Amino acid sequence: MTKRLRLSLRSGVLVLLALTLTPQIGFAQEAEVSQEMFTVNNTWMLVATFLVFIMHLGFACLECGLTQAKNTVNILFKNTGVVAIGLLTYALMGFNLMYPGDFSIGQFFGFAGFGIEPPVDGNTIAYADGAYTYWTDFIFQAMFAATAATIVSGAVAERIKLGSFLVFTTIYVSLIYPIAGSWKWGGGWLDSMGFYDFAGSTLVHSVGGWGALAGIIVLGPRIGKYVNGQVRAIAGHNMPLATIGVFLLWLGWFGFNGGSVLSAAPELVSRVFVTTCLASAAGIIGAMLTSWAVQHKPDLTMMLNGSLAGLVGITAGADVVSVNASILIGLIAGVIVVGSVLFIDRVHIDDPVGAVSVHLVCGIWGTLAVGIFSADHSLATQVIGVLAYGAISFPSALLIFFALKQVMGLRVSAEEERIGLDVGEHGMEAYQLPPTR
Amino acid sequence: MTKRLRLSLRSGVLVLLALTLTPQIGFAQEAEVSQEMFTVNNTWMLVATFLVFIMHLGFACLECGLTQAKNTVNILFKNTGVVAIGLLTYALMGFNLMYPGDFSIGQFFGFAGFGIEPPVDGNTIAYADGAYTYWTDFIFQAMFAATAATIVSGAVAERIKLGSFLVFTTIYVSLIYPIAGSWKWGGGWLDSMGFYDFAGSTLVHSVGGWGALAGIIVLGPRIGKYVNGQVRAIAGHNMPLATIGVFLLWLGWFGFNGGSVLSAAPELVSRVFVTTCLASAAGIIGAMLTSWAVQHKPDLTMMLNGSLAGLVGITAGADVVSVNASILIGLIAGVIVVGSVLFIDRVHIDDPVGAVSVHLVCGIWGTLAVGIFSADHSLATQVIGVLAYGAISFPSALLIFFALKQVMGLRVSAEEERIGLDVGEHGMEAYQLPPTR
Amino acid sequence: MTKRLRLSLRSGVLVLLALTLTPQIGFAQEAEVSQEMFTVNNTWMLVATFLVFIMHLGFACLECGLTQAKNTVNILFKNTGVVAIGLLTYALMGFNLMYPGDFSIGQFFGFAGFGIEPPVDGNTIAYADGAYTYWTDFIFQAMFAATAATIVSGAVAERIKLGSFLVFTTIYVSLIYPIAGSWKWGGGWLDSMGFYDFAGSTLVHSVGGWGALAGIIVLGPRIGKYVNGQVRAIAGHNMPLATIGVFLLWLGWFGFNGGSVLSAAPELVSRVFVTTCLASAAGIIGAMLTSWAVQHKPDLTMMLNGSLAGLVGITAGADVVSVNASILIGLIAGVIVVGSVLFIDRVHIDDPVGAVSVHLVCGIWGTLAVGIFSADHSLATQVIGVLAYGAISFPSALLIFFALKQVMGLRVSAEEERIGLDVGEHGMEAYQLPPTR
Repeated sequence: MTKRLRLSLRSGVLVLLALTLTPQIGFAQEAEVSQEMFTVNNTWMLVATFLVFIMHLGFACLECGLTQAKNTVNILFKNTGVVAIGLLTYALMGFNLMYPGDFSIGQFFGFAGFGIEPPVDGNTIAYADGAYTYWTDFIFQAMFAATAATIVSGAVAERIKLGSFLVFTTIYVSLIYPIAGSWKWGGGWLDSMGFYDFAGSTLVHSVGGWGALAGIIVLGPRIGKYVNGQVRAIAGHNMPLATIGVFLLWLGWFGFNGGSVLSAAPELVSRVFVTTCLASAAGIIGAMLTSWAVQHKPDLTMMLNGSLAGLVGITAGADVVSVNASILIGLIAGVIVVGSVLFIDRVHIDDPVGAVSVHLVCGIWGTLAVGIFSADHSLATQVIGVLAYGAISFPSALLIFFALKQVMGLRVSAEEERIGLDVGEHGMEAYQLPPTR
Repeated sequence: MTKRLRLSLRSGVLVLLALTLTPQIGFAQEAEVSQEMFTVNNTWMLVATFLVFIMHLGFACLECGLTQAKNTVNILFKNTGVVAIGLLTYALMGFNLMYPGDFSIGQFFGFAGFGIEPPVDGNTIAYADGAYTYWTDFIFQAMFAATAATIVSGAVAERIKLGSFLVFTTIYVSLIYPIAGSWKWGGGWLDSMGFYDFAGSTLVHSVGGWGALAGIIVLGPRIGKYVNGQVRAIAGHNMPLATIGVFLLWLGWFGFNGGSVLSAAPELVSRVFVTTCLASAAGIIGAMLTSWAVQHKPDLTMMLNGSLAGLVGITAGADVVSVNASILIGLIAGVIVVGSVLFIDRVHIDDPVGAVSVHLVCGIWGTLAVGIFSADHSLATQVIGVLAYGAISFPSALLIFFALKQVMGLRVSAEEERIGLDVGEHGMEAYQLPPTR
Repeated sequence: MTKRLRLSLRSGVLVLLALTLTPQIGFAQEAEVSQEMFTVNNTWMLVATFLVFIMHLGFACLECGLTQAKNTVNILFKNTGVVAIGLLTYALMGFNLMYPGDFSIGQFFGFAGFGIEPPVDGNTIAYADGAYTYWTDFIFQAMFAATAATIVSGAVAERIKLGSFLVFTTIYVSLIYPIAGSWKWGGGWLDSMGFYDFAGSTLVHSVGGWGALAGIIVLGPRIGKYVNGQVRAIAGHNMPLATIGVFLLWLGWFGFNGGSVLSAAPELVSRVFVTTCLASAAGIIGAMLTSWAVQHKPDLTMMLNGSLAGLVGITAGADVVSVNASILIGLIAGVIVVGSVLFIDRVHIDDPVGAVSVHLVCGIWGTLAVGIFSADHSLATQVIGVLAYGAISFPSALLIFFALKQVMGLRVSAEEERIGLDVGEHGMEAYQLPPTR
């Protein structure tokens, strides 16, 4: 029921959704909260906003670190561009597609018009319920938007044409992500059904993961990854960078999940901090032990993916599961991600950063876990939600990638792939390091 | 009118400046705000403070990334030292020069004495108006102070003597920056004229940019940059580091601009987040398209500079221009910065990181944009402000650099420049990397 | 008296400890604070929590940067694992050992049971006194817990077996750190005596530093460090990474110290920001000048250690010493750390990152400084506290390391040390960088 605040305000419905989530606080019955409460709520949401912003740097570092040095400039370019495209298209249309207020086609599609503009009754739209301003609403949601495309970026790295990727991003972020998002957070049909996804295990991570899978399938594997039926590992080039990426993502998740409370409600935000943090810790341990047992060595990249797996896994239910459940969800996510990475590689799906395993597989796990660990939610409904998001995201992404392949070409030449996209696409190299002595 | 809070308090004028900026909130008429509002305002200002602190790391990363590996230790040393010097000299005298309370020479110069000490009437100086404490006031402003010197650092990198740079920094940060700042934020003559600079497009970025230009002129270009009238690009050595730097600067800007509201006023702070963020995004797109068109390749460093250009451009008017205007200001800044970088190189001004283009040229653009996009401000007055800050900063910096050249020498020897300042000045190297296989 | 909040709540004692620290605010006399104040206090504590989280990334970057490239994956693995182990064991037992409520053995040991669970009277345990929720209490303290083990990590780097280190960490963090911590922050015998350690110069940093010293002694120096009585410097491999680490640690310290106020009390939190920040700046200047004078070159790593030295030094008294005293404490810490690093190396204690000098030596200095610079605290009592923490930490760590040496072995083989732990323990390398041209 979270994230519907803006919708309800637009509809003139003064049900205080965010506040009823924290009934123990005792001011939920009032139609208005004080200016002080409004200010602290809004301030927390802005803090959460800049935390989610940091995740984009985290993704950039992680993706660079886990791929080859010769494609680093390309990745940095893509990831910086995606943030800009995501923010601007969300202002242009995404926000009003995701939170249309009224739907025009069933509960499947609605559009409140181009651009962002606060309602005519002044800037204090959210004042009455004590949550946050219109601007805060926009910028917090806008920071989420680019995430889905960034997830795709890692999966298609080291072989996709820059221009084609940027066009894909623009379409996926400005149309698919917000329309799909409106089904739940915009108050659409899945919200009416009782589907639950607190902060986006499905709405953000699976949507990104489905796009990643589609991209990998259309593009095919990197040259040299699968040779004569053998898997040849292509090592990442910078482990400190990858680790910085994961820590920054973890940091950002305090805002991703903590901000999804949509207020500074102390009990709820702090419990979300605990479940989020312990799920990540448990994901690390789960992945560490699993990979140590299966691969017979302590694998850093598996451990890092374990952290993200735990985080993606807890995202759907961070506010409704118990602390003990959060540890279990994270632990299982850590086990799952190792199995998934190994399996996906075995079936020759070449995912350089493990995006499908982390975001799609663990996103599904986290969404189902809500139905398993929270008595208030139905596992069947969660399954329906998972399938629905797969049914819109995967074919859409496939279609866009196929169309781009026809129109612009999708993959760089074998020669460019060999020398690297940095020189091939950008005419520059990422590093100029001193000779080794 | 922002940043004058402390001044007004000192003068005993109880006009609630920060609060009148947000009249819609409805408590501006009261002489005091609640303890709760005081606390949330103060908390937000401290959050903004640590965000501005992060910018110093951002500058360090960006400057290292865009220069050669052999000068990396030197740059890290400079940038760490500058933060320390900036904070301590601001405590010693900068704060009381910038916010003197009463001016002693016209509205041009005043000094409230050495050291920082809250007024005798207790520690709750700011309580009555609900803004923040004396200590918050100091530390937020102190974080800004070192910025101007750090901007210079990038421009003079790879050839300036360490000791001379540190002396320049000390003088520029403890004298020029705060005295110039007092003209506007301290309530001096430019403030009286109606000049407007919300968070420092001119007071911080142009002042730094003028110092950068002066340093470049006195030092001359790096050896090998301009040979027989030809420009030879000297590539930066670490693009991930440069990108981390820009993202950290963007992150810090949420505090730089968001904190310049000087309270947690929801409407205003959140709108500043939106204008700041969209200007950066638009700057990225503007610089990306311009450089792609002009240079015929997608240039990462231009894109990164585009982000900073948008941020510098929006800084003067982030609170007074519309959201659509912020996008336009950022977009134009992105175009300008590419043109400026190319032009400045063509006239053989060797600015390794593009500091003059980003901070001076776009700082001027942003300041003028207030006069263009805000009906409440006069373009003519904005021009006067821009010229006034040029008239104090550039000659002062030139004078200091010339004096240092005579007294200490300003430039390292050609031999040291060739082997790098890391070995030459510090006797160590930044990297000890494994042999390539 | 800080950090006892939870204890007092458990004991049913409604003395408003955190609030009485800020009597000037005027609401300390009330038995309850408003919901608004509760919310802003809780929000600040969560911000402080994510800041302390960042310190773990800071430690990882610093330790990697100051050691050899061939051991980087190992360090990243250790530091990521330590965070996970620290959080989970603190949830399992550490929290309830550190804040037992009632002690069972004198005022030396108490245990409130396994797991974390808010008291039966609902989730709003902390509501009445306006501080923060049970969950916030837990997660803020949990972030501290892993720090002690991380400090050890740097000291034993490049030669300790991975498995043995992880076992050491688990024991040290889940038993020694919280039991020792209960003596002061849990309301034990040292708290009763009047010992003062605001945010952990002793409770966190010295405890970590004693463990570091014990580890070094049991392990011995790295091969090649001391040859024929000569000290051979082993250079760190990545100075930008080390510098990023220090800036992130400094950033995190705003939460480490600022959050230790245990509320958002404006006067106190903002003054702690100022003392913390100026002590770090002064530490930089102190170490810079000392090392420049003694070593005849401007040494970046000494400067970085100076920042940390100042931060560790101010941590015990950040809330009780004057601003001028904080500068002096930091300056002296900067001098001390240079002397200590040089001395420790001379006596052939091989501490790759200077952990003993920074955390133990400056932790002691900071704790004693409270007795020197604050009239309200006794130097003799501070000495007793320092000795008491040495008496529990050092022998405990020695014992654990000796036991592990017998049971699992503690040190990798000479051959593995030579080729590096990355290949030896993990079968992978941290960097795959392009050939130099």
